[in-house]
Amino acid sequence: MGQVSVSIVGASGYAGGEFLRLALGHPRLRVQQITSRRFRGEPVGFVHPNLRGVPLKFVDPEELKPVDVLVLAMPHGVAAREIDRYQSLAPLLVDLSSDFRLKDLELYRKYYGEHPRPDLLGRWVYALPELYKEEIRKADWLAGCGCNATAVLLGLYPLFHGGVLAPRPAFVTVIASTSAAGAEANPASHHPERAGSLRAYKPTGHRHTVEILENLPGAPRDDRLYLSVVADDHIRGIFMLAQVFLQDGWSERDVWSAYRQVYHDAPFIRIVKTRKGIHRYPDPKIVEGTNFCDIGFELEDTGRLVVMTAIDNLVKGTAGHALQALNLRLGFEETLGLEFVGLHP
Amino acid sequence: MGQVSVSIVGASGYAGGEFLRLALGHPRLRVQQITSRRFRGEPVGFVHPNLRGVPLKFVDPEELKPVDVLVLAMPHGVAAREIDRYQSLAPLLVDLSSDFRLKDLELYRKYYGEHPRPDLLGRWVYALPELYKEEIRKADWLAGCGCNATAVLLGLYPLFHGGVLAPRPAFVTVIASTSAAGAEANPASHHPERAGSLRAYKPTGHRHTVEILENLPGAPRDDRLYLSVVADDHIRGIFMLAQVFLQDGWSERDVWSAYRQVYHDAPFIRIVKTRKGIHRYPDPKIVEGTNFCDIGFELEDTGRLVVMTAIDNLVKGTAGHALQALNLRLGFEETLGLEFVGLHP
Amino acid sequence: MGQVSVSIVGASGYAGGEFLRLALGHPRLRVQQITSRRFRGEPVGFVHPNLRGVPLKFVDPEELKPVDVLVLAMPHGVAAREIDRYQSLAPLLVDLSSDFRLKDLELYRKYYGEHPRPDLLGRWVYALPELYKEEIRKADWLAGCGCNATAVLLGLYPLFHGGVLAPRPAFVTVIASTSAAGAEANPASHHPERAGSLRAYKPTGHRHTVEILENLPGAPRDDRLYLSVVADDHIRGIFMLAQVFLQDGWSERDVWSAYRQVYHDAPFIRIVKTRKGIHRYPDPKIVEGTNFCDIGFELEDTGRLVVMTAIDNLVKGTAGHALQALNLRLGFEETLGLEFVGLHP
Amino acid sequence: MGQVSVSIVGASGYAGGEFLRLALGHPRLRVQQITSRRFRGEPVGFVHPNLRGVPLKFVDPEELKPVDVLVLAMPHGVAAREIDRYQSLAPLLVDLSSDFRLKDLELYRKYYGEHPRPDLLGRWVYALPELYKEEIRKADWLAGCGCNATAVLLGLYPLFHGGVLAPRPAFVTVIASTSAAGAEANPASHHPERAGSLRAYKPTGHRHTVEILENLPGAPRDDRLYLSVVADDHIRGIFMLAQVFLQDGWSERDVWSAYRQVYHDAPFIRIVKTRKGIHRYPDPKIVEGTNFCDIGFELEDTGRLVVMTAIDNLVKGTAGHALQALNLRLGFEETLGLEFVGLHP
Repeated sequence: MGQVSVSIVGASGYAGGEFLRLALGHPRLRVQQITSRRFRGEPVGFVHPNLRGVPLKFVDPEELKPVDVLVLAMPHGVAAREIDRYQSLAPLLVDLSSDFRLKDLELYRKYYGEHPRPDLLGRWVYALPELYKEEIRKADWLAGCGCNATAVLLGLYPLFHGGVLAPRPAFVTVIASTSAAGAEANPASHHPERAGSLRAYKPTGHRHTVEILENLPGAPRDDRLYLSVVADDHIRGIFMLAQVFLQDGWSERDVWSAYRQVYHDAPFIRIVKTRKGIHRYPDPKIVEGTNFCDIGFELEDTGRLVVMTAIDNLVKGTAGHALQALNLRLGFEETLGLEFVGLHP
Repeated sequence: MGQVSVSIVGASGYAGGEFLRLALGHPRLRVQQITSRRFRGEPVGFVHPNLRGVPLKFVDPEELKPVDVLVLAMPHGVAAREIDRYQSLAPLLVDLSSDFRLKDLELYRKYYGEHPRPDLLGRWVYALPELYKEEIRKADWLAGCGCNATAVLLGLYPLFHGGVLAPRPAFVTVIASTSAAGAEANPASHHPERAGSLRAYKPTGHRHTVEILENLPGAPRDDRLYLSVVADDHIRGIFMLAQVFLQDGWSERDVWSAYRQVYHDAPFIRIVKTRKGIHRYPDPKIVEGTNFCDIGFELEDTGRLVVMTAIDNLVKGTAGHALQALNLRLGFEETLGLEFVGLHP
Repeated sequence: MGQVSVSIVGASGYAGGEFLRLALGHPRLRVQQITSRRFRGEPVGFVHPNLRGVPLKFVDPEELKPVDVLVLAMPHGVAAREIDRYQSLAPLLVDLSSDFRLKDLELYRKYYGEHPRPDLLGRWVYALPELYKEEIRKADWLAGCGCNATAVLLGLYPLFHGGVLAPRPAFVTVIASTSAAGAEANPASHHPERAGSLRAYKPTGHRHTVEILENLPGAPRDDRLYLSVVADDHIRGIFMLAQVFLQDGWSERDVWSAYRQVYHDAPFIRIVKTRKGIHRYPDPKIVEGTNFCDIGFELEDTGRLVVMTAIDNLVKGTAGHALQALNLRLGFEETLGLEFVGLHP
Repeated sequence: MGQVSVSIVGASGYAGGEFLRLALGHPRLRVQQITSRRFRGEPVGFVHPNLRGVPLKFVDPEELKPVDVLVLAMPHGVAAREIDRYQSLAPLLVDLSSDFRLKDLELYRKYYGEHPRPDLLGRWVYALPELYKEEIRKADWLAGCGCNATAVLLGLYPLFHGGVLAPRPAFVTVIASTSAAGAEANPASHHPERAGSLRAYKPTGHRHTVEILENLPGAPRDDRLYLSVVADDHIRGIFMLAQVFLQDGWSERDVWSAYRQVYHDAPFIRIVKTRKGIHRYPDPKIVEGTNFCDIGFELEDTGRLVVMTAIDNLVKGTAGHALQALNLRLGFEETLGLEFVGLHP
């Protein structure tokens, strides 16, 4: 297989722009078209200044041509309405929105409202490679995961899966960053208002709750996991802290073993657990720009286990895991194009 | 009563420096001496550049003279060892460390180790004015509260006190800031390492847990409240997010009523709860430099109540509540010298 | 004289909001009305969250009543168009915009375009108290100064005035902050774009150039001072760095003496010049929220003198010097209501 | 030519760590040894958390073995004292310190003091590829350039070289970042002190002045360029703003042409000059982590030309240009291992 062509719909947003950055550096992908209604005709560097000098211009979505892989990076609810057209343009679709992530229509309705194409729910593969590697290898329609859901699932899935947790709810606080709210300016994102702030974003009712519940082992019951999402003023990054309880008599070794069972061949998972030094816990700063998910945990004699994860919301949380899934689907090395290790300091 | 003289031991640290700033602006206090071994002889502005031009120099602690009020702002464990001398110098003592905050010696030992003067535990008044106004008015020894404990107690005490909570644990995440770690430089506080980071500080075992438990109504049992403390890279501020559950059948009105009962005459408590605008939740940025504690909450149909508070760790969390308590003790207006409302933006 | 009533037109912006904050804390002023078309009917805390709980609502500008002092805090060009109405409402006007700052109509036209009321140019007093104390005491119309102009003039005026400089141009770089661009959200102020950035704002052609030239001693010639303005991502603050040359044979003592001559009784000017410690130069962080202007300088054996100043753009750069001027005009203590010393750290 | 082995002396610092990061991602380099006295025996990820999981440990400098390329990344003055030993270990040396950058011993003494090996001054090649490509291709000893000097020279060299400038001094302000001061914690780098600050770093007398003067065309006279260096609180990045004057009658086209002449085949130089959009000028944020130098300029009708450059101090300013030079010397593609384009947002 030679070069694979890829076009990106909605490439002026942060998710689409990040997929574009990764695709441009990927040795086996060739970017064919990028679309943006608002910026049609502009060079890509006008919107994404890191891509200054890249000879690529935004085109109108109407001008899309057939392509090997079509990546949809539009606001929630948009892709589903035109999905038939996109399916006719490419045999392989990757959607970064929430339109096709969920399986349960009732849960979708509760958090998102009516779905334009309920018939398609459950027919896409949830593109989290650490959980669904085999399904992804056979899928033609890949649904990218929510960034916060990614941080929560990568931290907690192995513990639920390994049966090490007592039957008590998980209490989760996620600290998100400002790029999570997208590329559109608004009064709340005005720099003097937003800089320095630490705000509740969704203390209750965050939409990613439902995809977390659907992808944890067992039934997606409300009382399995409680999620509160706040946001500080970093540009990128997600930090997740979960409070769960071990089964009576189980120990830190069982936690290690649960993670090892699921992640023994996961190239982007790093367990961070050292007793000394200044980098003893996961920190979103360390994974900025990378596809890593750093995971740490600490066990208390009360049986409480505190689990922490750190990811870059736009890479591992969005475009990175999507590209990782695409690598798997296309038979490439899983890590291809995702080698950036991040900066220090 | 005219001017009250006050001296500060350990005034080169952040807590002592903040008390000094407030005392210098207080119309009824007169700062008599400030001590610092390391900076003896230096003008105060050398250490605290906001106080440039203030004609006051650090003296050695050995040079302390009798005074009306002595404020102790030393690292934990230091004040207790010389407490007899300090008691001989002033009829009224305010200690900002953790030396005299606790009542239970066993709990002290578990979190702090041996106490040099166990006989004095339980004889100081915990100087949180919103909870202990009457006790403070009669106290000669005021023990300042932990900054994180302040943020947690102000958010949760009224709910425990009002009986609105189901008998389930509170799960608390506190996001602290970098000044909480004190004025001493170290590899972890080196700017290029610390800036941009979001680190777990104490996922388990934070010392303030014990003073929270001691001051909630009821017995200080381990399973009443689980605390995890992380730190972002703001200079000041504490954000607390607690997940608790209401009693069956209780509603948001009961929550309002519980807060009103305890805080009806609390000048520094603001309940922040609006449906529109960009400032709908407590945010440490908004209270920076002030003695306010902003409290918000959000109730889910599962019965989960998310409670949030925001304070400035050095003001309301340390020097501010101590001065507020001192105002009460000295018969001054509770808000005297604490009028700064903070900046926007 | 008892309380003086003051109303603020355009109080939802950053300049008006800052004047409001200061006025509310001023013992001799009573805020009568605050106007905002967009937020009419909203409580002040909806826009300025630091003023939560203050019982004051925005009214429509049409509802303005006669008042002792009327403060105009509107975008440039607006006040001048309705100035007759404002003059009929109050005997004392303070305008924070650029409408009445300039004296020379030609220079105004070059930088701002046509002026709606050229007849009023030159009839207002430039409200920089350190330069025009006597004029201010007699003025009924006070024109607030540009924030960058304030930082430049306070640093350089005494050197020009004292004759210590060689007849060569001053080369000035000003580093401004994000609040300088106002309260209106726009694509460039979107947090993920703005945070972390360090941008040229006006490398050439900054409008404040002309008011600097007009207020330096001597003729306002283009080649006396070259100004470049960049902006980093702090919320508040201005840092000015000027490169000038001393007259042959003149020394640091002459510089000290030039500053002393102009600032001997200026309560908000601090010369910052120490050889040790970590706070050896002016730093906008140190003066945040305050009315101070910190000034530093360093002389090279080539004769080059580097002058630095640091102010808070919204306080000393806008609302603070306006209130200071108002204090002078009303016969109050110059520092009244401007006592906040700032925070450390 | 197969793999080239490289060892790094002083790899626990920021410059050495950055070279290491780049070398690990370089397809033709193989990292053989990294040294650190303090961290000997520790895995590389202990110091550089972005390199977590990389199976490489620090060794003592005494354990160095012969290698193809030896990179010296030590504090100034250290490499020169042991240079004979390093020369015996590798045929190709790259020094990132200031020990061998200068040619003129008198200028070295004026800014740095005595040189341990004055005989070696002038025998190394100044490793700025955009200026000395041919010399670098033949050099065995490459002296890395100062980060601020790189930013200044890349912006101004072509203008001096092209003869477009009037014979007047250049007035330069450089805004540096906190990583420029190195990896060692100290009171001035303590996060609560450093964050939010904007400080003069070297208003006069910055050491990089001399290497700038030495590498501009013409004699290194003091009055050709005046440099002031300040530092804001970004972790990485340098922003340079220079005020110069064009020859009478020369225009913006001549400026374009001067840059084109020197940079027509420079893959890391981008001229940034657009009339619309929010990214119209060079911004260090945009080049973070990359080897790009973005250059912008603006001409005033007074003849003043403002030139701006933005680089990452640790990449283009230090390790990146050194690797770029090494690529040239080894006959590799100039851009090899330096392909990272940076992030947006």
